Amino acid sequence: MPRVRPDQLAARRREILAGARACFARYGYEGATVRLLEKETGLSRGAIFHHFRDKESLFIAVAQDDAATMVATVEQFGLVQVMRDLLHRDDADTAGWLGSQLEVSRRLRTDPDFASRWSAPTDAVVAATRERLSRQRDAGVLRSDVPIDTLAKFLELAYDGLVLHLAMGRAAGDLEPVLDLVEAAVRRPAHD
Amino acid sequence: MPRVRPDQLAARRREILAGARACFARYGYEGATVRLLEKETGLSRGAIFHHFRDKESLFIAVAQDDAATMVATVEQFGLVQVMRDLLHRDDADTAGWLGSQLEVSRRLRTDPDFASRWSAPTDAVVAATRERLSRQRDAGVLRSDVPIDTLAKFLELAYDGLVLHLAMGRAAGDLEPVLDLVEAAVRRPAHD
Repeated sequence: MPRVRPDQLAARRREILAGARACFARYGYEGATVRLLEKETGLSRGAIFHHFRDKESLFIAVAQDDAATMVATVEQFGLVQVMRDLLHRDDADTAGWLGSQLEVSRRLRTDPDFASRWSAPTDAVVAATRERLSRQRDAGVLRSDVPIDTLAKFLELAYDGLVLHLAMGRAAGDLEPVLDLVEAAVRRPAHD
Repeated sequence: MPRVRPDQLAARRREILAGARACFARYGYEGATVRLLEKETGLSRGAIFHHFRDKESLFIAVAQDDAATMVATVEQFGLVQVMRDLLHRDDADTAGWLGSQLEVSRRLRTDPDFASRWSAPTDAVVAATRERLSRQRDAGVLRSDVPIDTLAKFLELAYDGLVLHLAMGRAAGDLEPVLDLVEAAVRRPAHD
């Protein structure tokens, strides 16, 4: 077998993740069979499962990939910006991928191992949100009468709401002023 | 065949809805087979589908039942009270039923007929929320710098977020102060 360079391995991994994301978006978690994953990535099951143990691992890896992007955005601009990005990226693929995440809700409630593997990427976003809010409070831009934890959970509730909204295929166009309201609710009022 | 009185028919219908709700909660939409629906309701498929055309109709009828309860609460106390009720009713059955609703997200995006039948109960809650907000604005308890439509969508976003949160099996215990924040965000500030 020819030797494969690390950058080629990483490129192949990215290729598989992109194909898998599109496949989960189009067919859902259950519907994304190994055959469809092969078709969407253009690779054999042998090649795919050389990089990822199984379909579940592949699904969680796509979510981790998402979480890494989200953490970077949260650190610099906050969780509301992640929501604004979702609004602007509004398309069938985004909705489908979010929808496939909802599909596993029963498994999250009934399979502790899956739940703990799934919560790892989410936890990173939650931690980044809290850190940013702490920095914002120190900078005096945040309202001071509500604990950081409550503000973080409020933003996460809004984020979850947006995920459900988009995953259900509802129109995203007019949610920008709603996100303005979400953002204003955690900030110090102008007349303070 | 013996004649059945209308009140007996209505009681039987309620019985089927309660069993179906428990069945969808436990096994999800796809997992709730006709055999399981028979077991959970204690009735034959003949009896069940005498009242409801098919599994899809039964699922939508449970959602309509929910929506009717929600509309009554919204009219009197507002959508935030619906959320508070969900927090207090937090149990495996509630989470399971909400989860089964998420499961159909792909169908909502890809099956226009199902989507329109599903959106009817939701629309009733949306309309009741807008009506109540209008009355509250007239009464002067609402903030006056944001359109009713934006306030309604904001409350719906929070509601959707709570549904996702509970459906994913996450802890509900500490969300009460978050709902206080949601409620405060639509009200006129005390120092106005």
